[in-house]
Amino acid sequence: MSHWLYLVAAAVAWEAGKPLVIQEVEVAPPQKNEVRLRILFTSLCHTDVYFWEAKGQTPLFPRIFGHEAGGIVESVGEGVTDLQPGDHVLPVFTGECGECRHCHSEESNMCDLLRINTDRGVMINDGQSRFSINGKPIYHFVGTSTFSEYTVVHVGCLAKINPAAPLDKVCVLSCGISTGLGATLNVAKPKKGQTVAVFGLGAVGLAAVEGARIAGASRIIGVDLNPVRFAEAKKFGCTEFVNPKDYDKPVQQVIADMTDGGVDRSVECTGSIQAMISAFECVHDGWGVAVLVGVPNKDDAFKTHPMNLLNERTLKGTFFGNYKPRTDIPRVVEQYLNKELDLELEKFITHSVPFSEINKAFDYMLKGHSLRTIIRMED
Amino acid sequence: MSHWLYLVAAAVAWEAGKPLVIQEVEVAPPQKNEVRLRILFTSLCHTDVYFWEAKGQTPLFPRIFGHEAGGIVESVGEGVTDLQPGDHVLPVFTGECGECRHCHSEESNMCDLLRINTDRGVMINDGQSRFSINGKPIYHFVGTSTFSEYTVVHVGCLAKINPAAPLDKVCVLSCGISTGLGATLNVAKPKKGQTVAVFGLGAVGLAAVEGARIAGASRIIGVDLNPVRFAEAKKFGCTEFVNPKDYDKPVQQVIADMTDGGVDRSVECTGSIQAMISAFECVHDGWGVAVLVGVPNKDDAFKTHPMNLLNERTLKGTFFGNYKPRTDIPRVVEQYLNKELDLELEKFITHSVPFSEINKAFDYMLKGHSLRTIIRMED
Repeated sequence: MSHWLYLVAAAVAWEAGKPLVIQEVEVAPPQKNEVRLRILFTSLCHTDVYFWEAKGQTPLFPRIFGHEAGGIVESVGEGVTDLQPGDHVLPVFTGECGECRHCHSEESNMCDLLRINTDRGVMINDGQSRFSINGKPIYHFVGTSTFSEYTVVHVGCLAKINPAAPLDKVCVLSCGISTGLGATLNVAKPKKGQTVAVFGLGAVGLAAVEGARIAGASRIIGVDLNPVRFAEAKKFGCTEFVNPKDYDKPVQQVIADMTDGGVDRSVECTGSIQAMISAFECVHDGWGVAVLVGVPNKDDAFKTHPMNLLNERTLKGTFFGNYKPRTDIPRVVEQYLNKELDLELEKFITHSVPFSEINKAFDYMLKGHSLRTIIRMED
Repeated sequence: MSHWLYLVAAAVAWEAGKPLVIQEVEVAPPQKNEVRLRILFTSLCHTDVYFWEAKGQTPLFPRIFGHEAGGIVESVGEGVTDLQPGDHVLPVFTGECGECRHCHSEESNMCDLLRINTDRGVMINDGQSRFSINGKPIYHFVGTSTFSEYTVVHVGCLAKINPAAPLDKVCVLSCGISTGLGATLNVAKPKKGQTVAVFGLGAVGLAAVEGARIAGASRIIGVDLNPVRFAEAKKFGCTEFVNPKDYDKPVQQVIADMTDGGVDRSVECTGSIQAMISAFECVHDGWGVAVLVGVPNKDDAFKTHPMNLLNERTLKGTFFGNYKPRTDIPRVVEQYLNKELDLELEKFITHSVPFSEINKAFDYMLKGHSLRTIIRMED
């Protein structure tokens, strides 16, 4: 157990939408059930950007963002027995306490204790932050705050992975890629030869496409309002594309016409309520399954005619691809390493910058140029 | 193959809402892929009443209603090889052609060729009726028209059952009981020890309760606006009751409070859109599954906040309990006979009348006194 306060470089967000400032931050030792870790690689996800922009989200500043990362355990707090210094870990924005009804359920990964909380900027043990500058606290973000050389995370939010795994690649499994991949593989579960539609061809949607390709889908129809995405999506396995803007009829009708009544599975990765409804209504009656991934606005209402349900369609939502962070993610890393899963993480990594240029990662994402930008902490 | 026109007694509905008239009707021989059968027992289902009342439904008169029944094959038309005279059968309002994508799918029972069609009053082979009075056609109802001593049915709508099965009991498996039972056993699939809420405690809802009891549910919460139903429902296995009228808060909240966050499974058997929404929102996040059975109004919209889905709830609809009529119903009859399934059909049969008193069955149902009234054709 380390009792030292660390002085490290972190990228602090002082105000909504303003460039992060890399500066010295004190990182307190881990408390009960906590782990302090050194971040080696982190990547930027849309969720960081949303809460940094804080348009409609609760603003909580100053804050250290970041939640997709790979690191090495530096020290552990009281009660931590699963991890020890030197272990390779992926921090995850949602946790697995191992003891609640959700953790005991085979079907859920929505841990009661450590479920994502975007409004909480402190550790649950004492309601305090482990980050400070001259004694003034800096808020955490979703329990991870990986835009820092060192961070403190609840042990339930750390997946212990094979140290042979390249952290600069597998760090993207911390959030977006697992979310899309799991939505297809764990929830939509297309059978070999079935047809799949994926709404939204950002990183999460492309990971859903990757899942459909791995599952052996015969046709993978990508749906996006931005035709620039289509060339990229082909590399992931999309066989066809639909831009809803190109048609006078609803996109669900376009897809039904292309597929003799509807696709077998659909995965919605945009967060637009209209896309959610279309994704549901474009699956075939009798057996179609639609999976919702994208996070909607607070005031949205999902609305459909109940006959669409009674005709034996299934509508499901998923969170982090239904993966349990500690139980399942180490296995996904293992499958990637052993090539059991034909998962090509490299395709998602379009850019790489040193930590000193972290603000460039925000630019790339805001301009829609990047899927994932890896931020190298030690460069 | 019989080429004789039969002169038989049938209960003809001449006008919406007016008592049926038992009179002599000509029943033509079965054509290609058709079967003529003698009905021994038939029972009355709400769907007969809805279309007889024709409030909001397309009126089609004169018509012979009836779709829950048990009978014996009298003669078969060209191309019928699965059945022969003397076979015991249950006619079903929806069919299984065995050749379409739905019939080939393991998941669907919504046959393309023989799916229920409430507006069609004729046979699909030639677009004509097999019933007439002095040459004037009388319309069929959902391809079954069992309120007649003899009827003609497409072979794809006949389940061939073990002749040892008592037709006066198993006839109720033709529609409502299978619908509710299958909604729980085939679609909601509660695990042993899980909690189940059933909305609507009519025959279909009580069959859903029966399914929950058979599956070993630990708690079965019955929801109905009519408290008279509660005493009856106890016999089927309901352990608790909720009358939404007794509370100031929404019933989904009442149920969540009773069950530490929601039931594991729910089955909606009312057709009320508000009950559908409540049934969905009362299941636990992470793993809850809600199944919709009741048929809604044409203008209804199912509306919920998408976060209810994203928190890993599943919403499914079912039709005829997801049973394939020819493949699955004979097996259910067999399970009933062998007591493999602890299914107590007798509890659903509250009344019995001779054919001559068929209008009494309508009275019993309209007054809410009956679950199922068996109509004895030979009495």
